[in-house]
Amino acid sequence: MKIALAQTNPTIGDLKANSAGIILRIQQAAQAGAQLVVFPELSLIGYPPKDLLLKPRFINDNITALENIAQHCQNIAAVVGFACPHTGTGRTLHNAAALLQNKQVVATYYKQLLPTYDVFDESRYFEPAQSQSVIEFQGRRIGLTICEDIWNEPRPTQRPLYHAQPFAQLAQARVDLVINMSASPFVIGKHQFRLDLFAQQCRKHQLPLIYVNQVGGNDELVFDGNSCAFTNTGHLVAQAKDFQEDLLIVDLDNPDPHCNRVENPLQDVASVHAALVLGLRDYVQKCKFKSVVLGLSGGIDSALTAAIAAEALGPKNVLGVAMPSRYSSPHSVADARQLAQNLKINYHEIPIEPAHAALEQMLDPIFQNLPPDITEENLQARVRANILMALSNKFGHLLLTTGNKSELAVGYCTMYGDMAGGLAVISDVPKTLVYKISKYINRNSEIIPDSTITKPPSAELRPDQLDSDSLPPYDTLDQILQLYVEQEQSQDEIIAQGFDHQTVKRIITLVDRNEYKRKQAAPGLKVTSRAFGFGRRMPIAQNYHPT
Amino acid sequence: MKIALAQTNPTIGDLKANSAGIILRIQQAAQAGAQLVVFPELSLIGYPPKDLLLKPRFINDNITALENIAQHCQNIAAVVGFACPHTGTGRTLHNAAALLQNKQVVATYYKQLLPTYDVFDESRYFEPAQSQSVIEFQGRRIGLTICEDIWNEPRPTQRPLYHAQPFAQLAQARVDLVINMSASPFVIGKHQFRLDLFAQQCRKHQLPLIYVNQVGGNDELVFDGNSCAFTNTGHLVAQAKDFQEDLLIVDLDNPDPHCNRVENPLQDVASVHAALVLGLRDYVQKCKFKSVVLGLSGGIDSALTAAIAAEALGPKNVLGVAMPSRYSSPHSVADARQLAQNLKINYHEIPIEPAHAALEQMLDPIFQNLPPDITEENLQARVRANILMALSNKFGHLLLTTGNKSELAVGYCTMYGDMAGGLAVISDVPKTLVYKISKYINRNSEIIPDSTITKPPSAELRPDQLDSDSLPPYDTLDQILQLYVEQEQSQDEIIAQGFDHQTVKRIITLVDRNEYKRKQAAPGLKVTSRAFGFGRRMPIAQNYHPT
Repeated sequence: MKIALAQTNPTIGDLKANSAGIILRIQQAAQAGAQLVVFPELSLIGYPPKDLLLKPRFINDNITALENIAQHCQNIAAVVGFACPHTGTGRTLHNAAALLQNKQVVATYYKQLLPTYDVFDESRYFEPAQSQSVIEFQGRRIGLTICEDIWNEPRPTQRPLYHAQPFAQLAQARVDLVINMSASPFVIGKHQFRLDLFAQQCRKHQLPLIYVNQVGGNDELVFDGNSCAFTNTGHLVAQAKDFQEDLLIVDLDNPDPHCNRVENPLQDVASVHAALVLGLRDYVQKCKFKSVVLGLSGGIDSALTAAIAAEALGPKNVLGVAMPSRYSSPHSVADARQLAQNLKINYHEIPIEPAHAALEQMLDPIFQNLPPDITEENLQARVRANILMALSNKFGHLLLTTGNKSELAVGYCTMYGDMAGGLAVISDVPKTLVYKISKYINRNSEIIPDSTITKPPSAELRPDQLDSDSLPPYDTLDQILQLYVEQEQSQDEIIAQGFDHQTVKRIITLVDRNEYKRKQAAPGLKVTSRAFGFGRRMPIAQNYHPT
Repeated sequence: MKIALAQTNPTIGDLKANSAGIILRIQQAAQAGAQLVVFPELSLIGYPPKDLLLKPRFINDNITALENIAQHCQNIAAVVGFACPHTGTGRTLHNAAALLQNKQVVATYYKQLLPTYDVFDESRYFEPAQSQSVIEFQGRRIGLTICEDIWNEPRPTQRPLYHAQPFAQLAQARVDLVINMSASPFVIGKHQFRLDLFAQQCRKHQLPLIYVNQVGGNDELVFDGNSCAFTNTGHLVAQAKDFQEDLLIVDLDNPDPHCNRVENPLQDVASVHAALVLGLRDYVQKCKFKSVVLGLSGGIDSALTAAIAAEALGPKNVLGVAMPSRYSSPHSVADARQLAQNLKINYHEIPIEPAHAALEQMLDPIFQNLPPDITEENLQARVRANILMALSNKFGHLLLTTGNKSELAVGYCTMYGDMAGGLAVISDVPKTLVYKISKYINRNSEIIPDSTITKPPSAELRPDQLDSDSLPPYDTLDQILQLYVEQEQSQDEIIAQGFDHQTVKRIITLVDRNEYKRKQAAPGLKVTSRAFGFGRRMPIAQNYHPT
């Protein structure tokens, strides 16, 4: 039996476009000789639809769209993800899959395990299925699972989060094959983890597995695709492309040369780069923008962001703006200009002195002779935001903000200043990884100027300022942040690993105190296991200090 | 038996201060002759603690604090809310209550029904109890419930959200009394709903009920207190104060004159006003600020915000700043000045022309002869934000933002302009309610200038601009928004109620399109059943249009 893995890139809520994409893939799969085509989790409406699911009219429209798609399933069956109303006690919906066959919705199946952690809120919307789902299809018993359903296998380091184990239940129910429809977001290193987990489960239960994942960016999340198929010995026999749509035909019985293609997925730094390019492109296009603007400081963060934007949208659709102040060094503007030339993006220079001086004079009667402090630094960042937002408003460019995760963690950024923008492209990229991605971009030729990469980082908001004046070296900072933010380790645990007591204490205090800034941050593309944003929900007015 | 209802105002995560408050109330309750003192849900750590719960060290510290509190329970027992580790399959915590007696933690009980909707995320953290909790205490059987546990009774208009019905289960288990520990946030009209629901359940199950609610503001949520007690005939026999801490002694057997006080809670507009005052005060103080700054436009939104701030913090701790532009009418500054005088708050005037003109000149080479549009309007709002944030940074005032819910809904506000600030005091208050609260504030004397209340609303960002140029009348707008945002009605359903087709369509489009602005909005105090913010989670890059 040939099964088509339809790795689609839906736009959230766009029932019309998503239906058209699904119908096209059904036709292509049928032409390729597949008997069954499988789509990702909630493929009709896109994942995650969030509170769109609370609109009764939206649920009705998704049922109508599903029935329309069924009309296109005559010589092929399809499994499509959708939101199914649930009547009776409990939440009003199921996270569901429909089997479409002979122009009809012949059966529906529900997700059992509903992730409700990190960026996932499924218990907010869905009632879980009480038992596993088995499809009888062309003489085979197929176990149907949705994403989390196959992630609850006991692992040595983790206790089970759920009481049910659908994969094991399906093995007991003597199915011939397990299909998993997913919307599993990219995190650095996660695809290898998936491959290992899936292969181990196939071996354990002696069952083949077909895994179909969503691809594309939806707000903070980037889905990497990487759909794949395993034999019952855990052998990987097919793998779709990463970071783009794909239609992969799999035959687990009699593979012929046209089936079971195995693509080679990107790893490590290259995979993060690809995720950021896709996430940026999809956010801009799905929000119906064509072009972006960003400030170019001459530093590495804005250079990396510009390079990602140029790759995602084409250089014509990127405008970089250098906005030197009285404290900017000449090399900053030179580096910004060189970057724009290398990338072939549009470029302006607008010195901020006139507005900077005007604001200082306006405030002078009130500030009088008070010494300069962070106020004057922030003023410059905010004048720059005024200029960038004016260009955004006048020409319809989406403003990109360029701060990295290390800065955002410790609050080394200005609200309504450099934090202004519609998308924070690298806000989940620690500074040390910013360097690695920049070097990856320069792997063939110098795109980001070497001087941008090699000079010591500085915000240039007062004379001779350097990041290292007020922060520990970035390799130390990033290690502490990884332990504190991603791993939720305590101060004592981090110090016990050999970090300086005062440094750890100061960094943790900075992270905790700057929650109010992150509350108002632009959505940022998630690439680590724990990003600031939707998946990390901290109170602002709180006062926890370890005893 | 005398039971003390300890209506406390915890700070999230402040185990030291919260413990001290609990111990003080235990001592006061013992002195008043109570045998048992009951605290609100999660009273030791404050509600909602959000992702603080994911820190293992925080959970350990909360256990240590609980054991310390137990040392103070010798001649009285206490029931305290805390987060209890859960071992075995499932989530790592229970939302729990501890019975403290004879200097020990003698028993722990778990919440059964975990709200996971609107602002509530309890399935993210907690494993539900599988059965009801009964305390044997001084010869009585007390059924212990936590908040949501008693909200699942079948009602004519609503299907049950949960499979268990703890109140009915406790009746079957033949308890003598039900205690409910709550953290139930204020929503306009909700307390009357609670009283009706609780009374009806007492009558149905012939059981008395004691309800102890948290009070105080925590980020977006304001808890109103209003703890109360009912007989088994549903008769309200005691009610604590609203919007402040209280210790209420209840004797359901032999009420004496020192027990069973019944306070008279505020209603309607007065209750919203009190909620905003408390929410503002607690946010400012729990964030360790002493004073606030805000822009005074001469309009009603900033006037109302200033009046609430003056009442919450004292007028000395409020700075109002008028920042007229070339388009401001003379009466705007006069009204702002009059308001500041009436409120006795601090006041500055800083015309924005110098920075406004400087920015225009800086942008002129790029804008050239393009016609003025929203760009130039936003520029003024952002210059004002620069000034206000500079005052905030220099003097340590928290900046309050003053936009109302109607504006925020349709995007009639400027990012990094009038949306700038640490707290959005009235962002859940529709414009029509802004007028009602303003008139309530003026009930005894003119505090908000009459001219501010009577003049037609205008942003004054271009010559002779009025809100009514681009928006329907506010009473129409607010009705449409209520149906769309709070009730999730569809366009067709709203039109069917007699609203103009084009108007409804335009308003809905504006609400949907401006999600990106609200993503970066300051936290706002929730007073309606559905506020923008944490409890409304909409995708930004989405494209749902009803078919």
